[in-house]
Amino acid sequence: MDIAVLGTGTVGRTLAGKLSELGHVVVVGTRDPQATIARKDADAMGNPPYAVWQAEHPAVRLAPFAEAADFGELVVVATNGSGSLDALTLAGEENLAGKVLLDVSNPLDFSQGFPPSLFVKDTDSLAEQLQRAFPAARVVKSLNTMTAAVMVDPGRVSGGEHSVFVSGDDPEAKRIVVGLLEDFGHTDVIDLGDLSTARGPEMYLPLWLRLMGCVGTPFFNIKVVR
Amino acid sequence: MDIAVLGTGTVGRTLAGKLSELGHVVVVGTRDPQATIARKDADAMGNPPYAVWQAEHPAVRLAPFAEAADFGELVVVATNGSGSLDALTLAGEENLAGKVLLDVSNPLDFSQGFPPSLFVKDTDSLAEQLQRAFPAARVVKSLNTMTAAVMVDPGRVSGGEHSVFVSGDDPEAKRIVVGLLEDFGHTDVIDLGDLSTARGPEMYLPLWLRLMGCVGTPFFNIKVVR
Repeated sequence: MDIAVLGTGTVGRTLAGKLSELGHVVVVGTRDPQATIARKDADAMGNPPYAVWQAEHPAVRLAPFAEAADFGELVVVATNGSGSLDALTLAGEENLAGKVLLDVSNPLDFSQGFPPSLFVKDTDSLAEQLQRAFPAARVVKSLNTMTAAVMVDPGRVSGGEHSVFVSGDDPEAKRIVVGLLEDFGHTDVIDLGDLSTARGPEMYLPLWLRLMGCVGTPFFNIKVVR
Repeated sequence: MDIAVLGTGTVGRTLAGKLSELGHVVVVGTRDPQATIARKDADAMGNPPYAVWQAEHPAVRLAPFAEAADFGELVVVATNGSGSLDALTLAGEENLAGKVLLDVSNPLDFSQGFPPSLFVKDTDSLAEQLQRAFPAARVVKSLNTMTAAVMVDPGRVSGGEHSVFVSGDDPEAKRIVVGLLEDFGHTDVIDLGDLSTARGPEMYLPLWLRLMGCVGTPFFNIKVVR
């Protein structure tokens, strides 16, 4: 499949790399490719500059948001949550119409420090905001409940014995996303229902963040036992 | 231990019954014991009237909130979340001072129907509200992330292979609560940290509510795998 991954941080790189490895043709979208490639310093999380990652992944092309979105049959929103709406606006409504929009971003507000609060919650969600802004896109929320490395390699935590959620209004779009999740190795995919159910996984983040502190590593997940 | 359980609904009855069975002396607190006993109809959840339960649990005494709280060394807040602060106000600051206050309630607002929203969240929590209102009490949040029957009998879901959280500012109060959790059969008790971490388990409720819809039963829980 032709896939656009919007975002050049850890989440974007991890998803782009894995999707490419699985045989998909991947274009990573960014605001300004030349500026992204020109960066020489590690980012705030200590990750090496994008150019280093790019050199290791020659099959993945970097392009402006709009070009990437135009290319992809499926578009992954892997920006910081605070930048998701901007990135999609730059991607362009016409390049998103009819596309599966896999939103893995979280509405985290770090403006008051750590732990972050949520800039949308409870009676609304970031996924619903994106869907309202781009009604012709087919938004599916998933994967936002775990760290990037676990998204694409669930087996590295407890042999993959844990759960992942999907929310969305379009059954076919969800089916396509579930196929990708299974390709990543997820074995317990829980369809929560329509897109409003994305409020649940997004509001789980405050618990996730505290658990990360207790467990001492982001390499954990939850398993729904029943 | 002498324990007060505030609340006569499913959660209160379930906890009171189990604590009594474990050998604790339990007094259930309610606003007006005579009115509680006089009710002849099933409640909104279809539970039989309290008098029926009372007849089956003669060792558990029913008393006004203040009398129950005065009696208990440990006070369990098992009211509807919207009634927690009122119940504690009626219990009386002098009867709560120095006591372990185990808050299992959730800040659910059903005024707009189902699913409920949360009347406090994100930068505050119900547990913190209770602690601020009764600074001499030692509030511990726990057990709010599962249905009542699973709180006291974790083994009924997946042999007990799942997790329970505790949050609180007082280490000794948390130690006492963890002891009760272990007596109930919980084997994976995760200490999230200070009382502000209760925001996490409280904000997990929207996901819990949607999962209940998917799983088709409230008899499930999450296990933190790492």
